[in-house]
Amino acid sequence: MQKKEFMPNLYVALTHYPVVDKRGDIIASALTNLDLHDISRAAKTYGVKSFYVITPLSDQKVLAKKIIAHWTEGAGAIYNPDRRSALELIKVKDAIVDVAEDIESIENSYPKIVTTSAQRYPTSIGYADFRGILESGQPHLLIFGTAWGLAESIISEADFVLEPIAGMTGYNHLSVRSAVAIILDRLLGPGK
Amino acid sequence: MQKKEFMPNLYVALTHYPVVDKRGDIIASALTNLDLHDISRAAKTYGVKSFYVITPLSDQKVLAKKIIAHWTEGAGAIYNPDRRSALELIKVKDAIVDVAEDIESIENSYPKIVTTSAQRYPTSIGYADFRGILESGQPHLLIFGTAWGLAESIISEADFVLEPIAGMTGYNHLSVRSAVAIILDRLLGPGK
Repeated sequence: MQKKEFMPNLYVALTHYPVVDKRGDIIASALTNLDLHDISRAAKTYGVKSFYVITPLSDQKVLAKKIIAHWTEGAGAIYNPDRRSALELIKVKDAIVDVAEDIESIENSYPKIVTTSAQRYPTSIGYADFRGILESGQPHLLIFGTAWGLAESIISEADFVLEPIAGMTGYNHLSVRSAVAIILDRLLGPGK
Repeated sequence: MQKKEFMPNLYVALTHYPVVDKRGDIIASALTNLDLHDISRAAKTYGVKSFYVITPLSDQKVLAKKIIAHWTEGAGAIYNPDRRSALELIKVKDAIVDVAEDIESIENSYPKIVTTSAQRYPTSIGYADFRGILESGQPHLLIFGTAWGLAESIISEADFVLEPIAGMTGYNHLSVRSAVAIILDRLLGPGK
């Protein structure tokens, strides 16, 4: 393993609103338990500072907090301390703007917003480029969407859009859990 | 994206037996629905030939086949054709040896067995090395374990062990879904 020369000033968010459904309509999606587990573990592995779970729905916030509490304070914390240290990275917020303001309060600097998409945009940047930007040490918030992806308004307002993950087949339908894992490895893995 | 110069002759398996639990005891683990979805979608993205789900337990085989049928023949196939084309890659088998023999019958050549582990072994090989080996076109079976990982007997009998995924923090507890995604991207992603 090659030694890293910087710790990234990177925050990750998974948003459940505003995202699009199969037809492209804006929806608020439901929480998926394994998203919290898988993405917090990947975030912990790659040194992400916090993993924000965004939903404006009260019952979904209660559910998210219940899952987190089970693994960070409840029986799960004793049963599996490794899971605890991952889920401790999670913060639950109402909206992307609340996340950005939380990061600003921590960093004394408003984060640059970077979105992800399975589509390519004129403003898309590559992984090596974004890694270079991260080496500046400025705070960045990398946002993933659930369901069929982030609403267009979120992508168009972002500072950057990360280029899609291209495999070798043209098939482009990874789960968001897989996409987060691959993107963090491309940005922050050894030897890149 | 850099163009690939070869299609990998690679098969992936997720085994539920023999794997170890938290204490290191050999167990047969239960199926996780999202493993089938996430890993088949990653396999489809990176051009893996088949994704084998291995369990010796009858009820678990019935469950796996029910999930697959829903998305390849049932309502799910109409609702989401992209999911269908991923889940069509799945074959359910009793044991690793049955998978190897199935591949042999397809390829007229017994596959080399490559295991994954969160530990490093004297026989561990790196991603670039394994990618080089894959370019030979010989069939390879890459095996992932559920629960706390593959039983030692499986690892010691394999032709190779792939080196662990190292992030930047020393934390080494990714989900198997994340690990498969990252490893396929390291082996078969563009520009590697």
